[in-house]
Amino acid sequence: METTTAQIITTQDLLKHWQGHRALTRRVIEAFPEKELFEFSIGGMRSFAQLSHELISIGAPAIKAIVNRDASTYAEPEGLDTKAKILAQWDQDTQTINTFFPQLKDEEFGETFNLFGQYEFPIVQNILYFIDNEIHHRGQGYVYLRALGITPPFFWERY
Amino acid sequence: METTTAQIITTQDLLKHWQGHRALTRRVIEAFPEKELFEFSIGGMRSFAQLSHELISIGAPAIKAIVNRDASTYAEPEGLDTKAKILAQWDQDTQTINTFFPQLKDEEFGETFNLFGQYEFPIVQNILYFIDNEIHHRGQGYVYLRALGITPPFFWERY
Repeated sequence: METTTAQIITTQDLLKHWQGHRALTRRVIEAFPEKELFEFSIGGMRSFAQLSHELISIGAPAIKAIVNRDASTYAEPEGLDTKAKILAQWDQDTQTINTFFPQLKDEEFGETFNLFGQYEFPIVQNILYFIDNEIHHRGQGYVYLRALGITPPFFWERY
Repeated sequence: METTTAQIITTQDLLKHWQGHRALTRRVIEAFPEKELFEFSIGGMRSFAQLSHELISIGAPAIKAIVNRDASTYAEPEGLDTKAKILAQWDQDTQTINTFFPQLKDEEFGETFNLFGQYEFPIVQNILYFIDNEIHHRGQGYVYLRALGITPPFFWERY
């Protein structure tokens, strides 16, 4: 007799959840006028382009590093100095994430990996951290857009 | 022979993850001066007190509603007109969440429930939505604090 344990969330659902968030973040990047994307900020914080660079330096490189157990270090992307270039990289990363994420086996999520040679946590915690960090910075982007008089996309739009 | 499936994330870990976020949100509420908590905003958005009221109206009431499959409607809390009252409610809700969340069985996370009579989704999706929504609004709070010249707590502080 087999005992099957229901997954609270499956790998596929977690990937879909993340990509839904990434689709929304993409829409927020798009909503910024070119100049304000790179120059606008509040209270000395980073521009939304800089925040996007951080997200790009984590998402696809991190999931590749996790799957390959490759201890490469964190590096900000270079040359993403227009909205079009940021969005093109974003779309390329969407494919990379879709390629690598499903390679993670259920039992790997609990394994510890030292991401970027400095974040030594169970893999599932690192992945939740990427998603949370993206939501966090995107929330900042919403305030920037509102301050610019631009209506941000709905938070629940995730396609 | 038994087949055991490793959970990507366990109920206990997801609860710990959420409570970690709630501890950080509590710290953000605390970081606001009393007056600015209720009055400061950017770009016509809600004050952080109002955002906290929304989070309070979701967290504990939602998890109770899910566990009891109780289709009560969404209601904003009343009378939380000081920082101390918001924090006291927050702490009470921490206990409520700790009481109800562990009552959810693994197989229930995939079941559909019409939360607040209007959000008909698998329970796991509703729970991830609470957490994401909290991170999103807290991210806005970080910008408010920066605009007020106040250094927000570290994003990774979750104890």
